[in-house]
Amino acid sequence: MNIAQTMQDMGHNARASARILATTDDLAKSNAIRFAAASIISQSDQILVANQRDQEKAEKGNLPAAMLDRLILNEERIESIAAGLNTIADLPNPVGEIISTSNRPNGLRIDRVRTPLGVIGVIYESRPNVTADAGALCLKSGNAVILRGGSDSYHSATAIHDCLLAGLRAANLPPTSIQLVPTTDRAAVGELLTGLNGNLDVVVPRGGKGLVARIQNESRVPVFAHLDGICHVYVDREASLEMAVQVVLNSKMRRPGICGAAETLLIDTAWSPQHVRALIQKLQHAGCEVRAEQSIRENVEGCLPVSDSDWATEYLDAIISVKLVEGVAEAIEHINQYSSQHTESIVTANDKTAARFLNEIDSAILMHNASTQFADGGEFGMGAEIGIATGKMHARGPVGVEQLTCFNYRVHGSGQIRPN
Amino acid sequence: MNIAQTMQDMGHNARASARILATTDDLAKSNAIRFAAASIISQSDQILVANQRDQEKAEKGNLPAAMLDRLILNEERIESIAAGLNTIADLPNPVGEIISTSNRPNGLRIDRVRTPLGVIGVIYESRPNVTADAGALCLKSGNAVILRGGSDSYHSATAIHDCLLAGLRAANLPPTSIQLVPTTDRAAVGELLTGLNGNLDVVVPRGGKGLVARIQNESRVPVFAHLDGICHVYVDREASLEMAVQVVLNSKMRRPGICGAAETLLIDTAWSPQHVRALIQKLQHAGCEVRAEQSIRENVEGCLPVSDSDWATEYLDAIISVKLVEGVAEAIEHINQYSSQHTESIVTANDKTAARFLNEIDSAILMHNASTQFADGGEFGMGAEIGIATGKMHARGPVGVEQLTCFNYRVHGSGQIRPN
Repeated sequence: MNIAQTMQDMGHNARASARILATTDDLAKSNAIRFAAASIISQSDQILVANQRDQEKAEKGNLPAAMLDRLILNEERIESIAAGLNTIADLPNPVGEIISTSNRPNGLRIDRVRTPLGVIGVIYESRPNVTADAGALCLKSGNAVILRGGSDSYHSATAIHDCLLAGLRAANLPPTSIQLVPTTDRAAVGELLTGLNGNLDVVVPRGGKGLVARIQNESRVPVFAHLDGICHVYVDREASLEMAVQVVLNSKMRRPGICGAAETLLIDTAWSPQHVRALIQKLQHAGCEVRAEQSIRENVEGCLPVSDSDWATEYLDAIISVKLVEGVAEAIEHINQYSSQHTESIVTANDKTAARFLNEIDSAILMHNASTQFADGGEFGMGAEIGIATGKMHARGPVGVEQLTCFNYRVHGSGQIRPN
Repeated sequence: MNIAQTMQDMGHNARASARILATTDDLAKSNAIRFAAASIISQSDQILVANQRDQEKAEKGNLPAAMLDRLILNEERIESIAAGLNTIADLPNPVGEIISTSNRPNGLRIDRVRTPLGVIGVIYESRPNVTADAGALCLKSGNAVILRGGSDSYHSATAIHDCLLAGLRAANLPPTSIQLVPTTDRAAVGELLTGLNGNLDVVVPRGGKGLVARIQNESRVPVFAHLDGICHVYVDREASLEMAVQVVLNSKMRRPGICGAAETLLIDTAWSPQHVRALIQKLQHAGCEVRAEQSIRENVEGCLPVSDSDWATEYLDAIISVKLVEGVAEAIEHINQYSSQHTESIVTANDKTAARFLNEIDSAILMHNASTQFADGGEFGMGAEIGIATGKMHARGPVGVEQLTCFNYRVHGSGQIRPN
């Protein structure tokens, strides 16, 4: 296979499909997604067989246990993939929405109207469900998509992609609306990142830090991604112990491995040492390793020392670094220095202190009295997300169907000309 | 001068200023801009002396007449620069605006709040007024800016920059909020385009195609720009002759050299040949060179032949290419093939035909019965623009203060935690 030519052709076909999808009505897009969901259920045996092939290869190749777990499909996971598709089909159609209207003194009416972005590339690793989620989110938002699954999940992704194609066929939409790169050769990723001769508008990487970093460094097209999720919780002097325990434990321990999990706990020096001890003990009892400064270790047993590199580390595990800070000002300073601009939370009963925290930190998501683990498109009411972006261009925070669109201006006149 | 180090320092200082500007209240920003405007008036003698030095250098260097005209300042132009600043000062503050709010079933309130982008680089050529406009637009939107003026207007830009600095001082804002690159060495542009070690968020080029192309090719940070303005007017079978003449003449001839000027006229074959002749003669009488297909040349005297390359040419002059098309479908096809995604207009009395044109063309601005020369931030009610973007990421169409912002999510809770 000539990979460069294959990828160029995919880009060309994706652009042609994108032109059609841009003016396809919502019913056709939703029907394609619903039919794909039904097809995933009816084809679940074939999907499981394909997944079994991937698993066998993974076991031979000694894939790490966490990656293997992400790869494995079963009836329940397949049902959840299909349910996710139906949720996306039911979302309001973002395309064609009039975002704003301005009536000018000369009688011109200027509508700002939501339009698809065009062609989206999604590069992911071992999770086969991304094939379905990403394909459907892009279709719902009127975009063509080129999916590049990892070699570990190649057979599973192909089987799921077949169901998406069945959905497109049933709705009479171009099969090249959702394309899967037909090779596991890594050169295909390099080709994709060139922008396919103008036929790729944005790239969304889904996977580990190595993958995201490579794509951010090499891509010639914009990237929606987050490299790290170094999220902070700051417990202010005016926080109740009860709420601090609740928010901190959930932020760290609900699922320690997700990007919205807290990695660093900042505690106001004005909070009582008894409260500090109680909070940290709760973390320890929940199975969390606590790495803390000397002054905290003197107050609470069982803490490990913390080093400077901890403040810049995303553990993705049941570990938390803890630091005492002189009030909200030092908390903000620490966070602006070390955060990855993902999600930060403050626990306080003082609304003014909270407002300062929310105003002065430059992260995608800022929380007051809520768990950082709410950093999720579904929790934000977006229905589903293709990822979370920490960049400031175009998309920021959860990337749902709305973030996969842009807009244009449509000016309605009656013969107006511009004076000199 | 160590240019790399100088630019790195500018980036570092810009980021520090950006942090302050992000939470600076509107009054201080507006006062700085108003004071700068006053300073430009009171310092106009010094500005004119500096401009004289630039002009002398330009004449020695045989700068083309059009570039020289852009460079020249006089009392009237200086007053217009100051007036432009006051207009920007009076704009509503975009920062802190709540773009949308969603109340979740669990009681969380999620506000999407407008925030500055951060640090903006503006690279321009001979127009000294860009120093003032770009500096003020970035400041108003809460961003720090690094200005890189052309070597032709270096002394003028420096004199105007001094007035901006006086404004910042008067409002007690950091002088590094608006920095001017203190060298005309082109290596400074290369350094800027590296992104200054993460301290530059976006680049806005203002100038000719060569400058814009270089920046789009080399930049490691996002670029808001348009490379070409190949704008089309389509005259539909249901267009009145009167409105067609009005819109086409203004679109081409009001100012043939701006990016929103029409370059190609598409005429429905079903329009009457008498109308075609009358419309083209009006263009010719207005001094426009008409390049047309054989069938049109047989109908109208004085037209020159048109070649395939004309469809892809931005004349920026009193020249127009003309083609007959089989209705709106062929017009859309031609435009999607040749347009630069800037601005296109349809003249028709049929709203359904217009709707199809506006829906199916993927350009930043689409007009119905209006001149393409309305493609301008001021005409759109944005007050002022830093440029026009034809990309689809983040900003599209006129780039005003709102387009120089992004947003974050601010989540207000009462101790909510996420269930498993």
